[in-house]
Amino acid sequence: MHISSVINILGFLLMFLAGTMLLPIPFSIYYNPPDMPSDVIPLLGSAAITFIFGFLTFRFSKFSRDLRPKEGFAIVTFGWIFFSFFGCLPFLFSGAIPSFTDAFFETISGFTTTGATILTDIEALPYGLLFWRSLTHWIGGMGIIVLSLAILPFLGVGGMQLFRAEVPGPTADKLTPRITQTAKILWGVYVAFTAVETILLMLGGMNLFEALCHAFGTLATGGYSTKNASVGHYGSAYIDSIIIIFMLLAGTNFSLHYRFLKGDLMAYFRNQEFLFYLSIIGVATAIIGVDNFFRSDQSVLKIFQDTLFQVLSILTTTGYGTADYEQWSFSSQAVLFFLMFIGGCAGSTGGGLKVIRIYVLTKLIFTDIVRQLHPHAVVPVRIGKTTIPRDVLMNILGLLVLFVFIFVLGVVLMTMIGLDIESAFGAVAATLGNIGPGLGSVGPTDNYAAIPAFGKWVLSLLMLMGRLEVFTVVILLSPTFWRK
Amino acid sequence: MHISSVINILGFLLMFLAGTMLLPIPFSIYYNPPDMPSDVIPLLGSAAITFIFGFLTFRFSKFSRDLRPKEGFAIVTFGWIFFSFFGCLPFLFSGAIPSFTDAFFETISGFTTTGATILTDIEALPYGLLFWRSLTHWIGGMGIIVLSLAILPFLGVGGMQLFRAEVPGPTADKLTPRITQTAKILWGVYVAFTAVETILLMLGGMNLFEALCHAFGTLATGGYSTKNASVGHYGSAYIDSIIIIFMLLAGTNFSLHYRFLKGDLMAYFRNQEFLFYLSIIGVATAIIGVDNFFRSDQSVLKIFQDTLFQVLSILTTTGYGTADYEQWSFSSQAVLFFLMFIGGCAGSTGGGLKVIRIYVLTKLIFTDIVRQLHPHAVVPVRIGKTTIPRDVLMNILGLLVLFVFIFVLGVVLMTMIGLDIESAFGAVAATLGNIGPGLGSVGPTDNYAAIPAFGKWVLSLLMLMGRLEVFTVVILLSPTFWRK
Repeated sequence: MHISSVINILGFLLMFLAGTMLLPIPFSIYYNPPDMPSDVIPLLGSAAITFIFGFLTFRFSKFSRDLRPKEGFAIVTFGWIFFSFFGCLPFLFSGAIPSFTDAFFETISGFTTTGATILTDIEALPYGLLFWRSLTHWIGGMGIIVLSLAILPFLGVGGMQLFRAEVPGPTADKLTPRITQTAKILWGVYVAFTAVETILLMLGGMNLFEALCHAFGTLATGGYSTKNASVGHYGSAYIDSIIIIFMLLAGTNFSLHYRFLKGDLMAYFRNQEFLFYLSIIGVATAIIGVDNFFRSDQSVLKIFQDTLFQVLSILTTTGYGTADYEQWSFSSQAVLFFLMFIGGCAGSTGGGLKVIRIYVLTKLIFTDIVRQLHPHAVVPVRIGKTTIPRDVLMNILGLLVLFVFIFVLGVVLMTMIGLDIESAFGAVAATLGNIGPGLGSVGPTDNYAAIPAFGKWVLSLLMLMGRLEVFTVVILLSPTFWRK
Repeated sequence: MHISSVINILGFLLMFLAGTMLLPIPFSIYYNPPDMPSDVIPLLGSAAITFIFGFLTFRFSKFSRDLRPKEGFAIVTFGWIFFSFFGCLPFLFSGAIPSFTDAFFETISGFTTTGATILTDIEALPYGLLFWRSLTHWIGGMGIIVLSLAILPFLGVGGMQLFRAEVPGPTADKLTPRITQTAKILWGVYVAFTAVETILLMLGGMNLFEALCHAFGTLATGGYSTKNASVGHYGSAYIDSIIIIFMLLAGTNFSLHYRFLKGDLMAYFRNQEFLFYLSIIGVATAIIGVDNFFRSDQSVLKIFQDTLFQVLSILTTTGYGTADYEQWSFSSQAVLFFLMFIGGCAGSTGGGLKVIRIYVLTKLIFTDIVRQLHPHAVVPVRIGKTTIPRDVLMNILGLLVLFVFIFVLGVVLMTMIGLDIESAFGAVAATLGNIGPGLGSVGPTDNYAAIPAFGKWVLSLLMLMGRLEVFTVVILLSPTFWRK
């Protein structure tokens, strides 16, 4: 492995991170009430340390343009870890989150766009830190877009090569030019959507600060709010609707948005994954909605909106809340629990297994039935008119199996430190799926503060694994990787 | 499809079933106390009806020796359904279980060797019916041995063709001669083991009736006991040990027993699946045992025995109990919950996904990691020195995916009729895995009596699907099957 190249790129990325740490400062100065301890110095200090560290590693390492899969895996995994390590400094320096474990958890939860929080009183944080907390989502989301549409397809992780053809930009065989091109195009879409959502939220009565933070949380499918009661705080049907729309968009493949904006108006509806994604949303909303209708005396519209919001929030792995789904029926909770594993579309900022993989797996069942009845027939798995190559199918299935193993291991570890079974299932599903709120003691009205330190580190690792499609991290832990 | 052949064989099987209904009668006459309502007439009547129905269908249909996969799937699925339908008549006629739904549930739970009961007071049943109830396990176990070692490998369901080479007997291309040969050899082992366990249990103080019933329940990995407190009733370390040993044997591939008895003393230890099976038992017993040690003041030996008993009972999908695992720690319960999905070895009477499939899946992860790092390398999945063909791997993965889908659907349905999430997970896992006792309201000290009728039918279908490796049943439900 070209360790020098890896260090070089990581150094460059840290200098970028240092720059982003300055962005919350205007908000801190403008919004912080006079009696609130200022967070400007902690932010400046963190930025300085991060920049110096980044500059030194960048300066004293050499970049080779010839990046191979191994370097790709290392950059991605260590990138997220380093960002979380340096990104938690403002919380630590300001004293807002005094424990390193907690600060790291909160930050990696941000960068992985999970949105699981250890804060019991979010509104007590100074505005600069709140802004930084939401910004970690947005930066993480930028990373995911590049990762899922440029790096992972190239690395062939979990069948993501399926989307290589879908992605705009050149199809060079080297990583670097491809990443740069794809990133520029898709970040344009991402920034534009963020701007539009911010403006629409401000029209609903939010100030610039709140609107930006919630737009960051939506577009990145993160879920950090600036309010203790999450989006439910505003009690506004308009705001709920805006966030519903943008959660839907954030959970969609961003290359579809690009095509749509380039004038291909039917781009969405020619995409099988997107149609399957809509079907899942429809079925889940129908099942839960009907159930809620018979249990509630609110208006049909309100019930529909609450149901759709929670379904989208869980499915796209955002994690915002406008209703406490733990008060819903057991069947609604079960449906939401299973949605946790599906996640957004490939090429979106959503986590989970991704809609396309679930779609391929359902197809696999049908082809296996045909194969069983006609043992000598060749029965390919198709998506639309495309035949899925066997290798791609094996990658998807390998990922599924690995996901299940990690899930089981996670649940056993969490129960070992004392969580009850429901909470353990919820916490592992919500972190591995990058959702945020889980079930039981980590449900939508609770937080992760009470989990023992060991558990927070396990969950941090799960967030990272979930975000990087599991394989990326596991590969780094395998001896084969480090063998010459 | 040769419907006539299918009906012919089903008729023959029903005549056989009628004969087995006479076996409980001597026990009924000998053991029933004078004040207990006799169950001789109900048993005789059921036998007569079953025989007449079987004889008529056999007589007025024609058998063609040319059976193909389609007929195989139909015979197997309808065989189990017909057996459960006619097998529940003694319970209905005697009035011991007045509801048809309950009687059918109890009987299909017997024939699928699940052992989930709707009886709240087992000991109130007359002895003939109790014997019949346990005998359904044993008959089901005989069916499973033929199914898993002769029929399914031939049909290629879920990768069972892996074991085609393992099976004694001729390897003809037609189903019938192969089934007959294999069945004779393996039933010999099955009968011999049952006889040995019966004698050993009688040496521990059981009478012939109890010893036979518990031997039936063990060898078939069923779990029906004649006592309300299951095997815990006896409180005997000797009896516990005997059942531990025979659960271990019942969860092992029966063709290994055959080889061992033919003089190949190392047969077990050259078998990768068996070694993996032992490893799982070892790891689970260690994790739970250490935990129980710190929570209990009983002797180390007693703790070890209780732990091993419960681990084997769940893993082999037997379902006998000597301790209430719902009193154990959350981590122990989580480990047991995950064991529910593994099940016994292929070619055993155990249910679940089967050890070999889990073993292949773990191997798949490692080969996928290597493939990811060396995208152009050809990396086969191996078990020992055997390379698993891609088609077999696809069958295993297809089964896994289907299993997960059925599980999810089952849980959603059970929560819809009012079960809490833990009980729904427990009930579906315990029936789909053919175990018996689950978690929550269907835990080891509870029963399935309180589940609404609709739920009992759903669970009955799950037991059938679990027993027949899911595909066999699902294939029958697919339109492709019925298309000409």
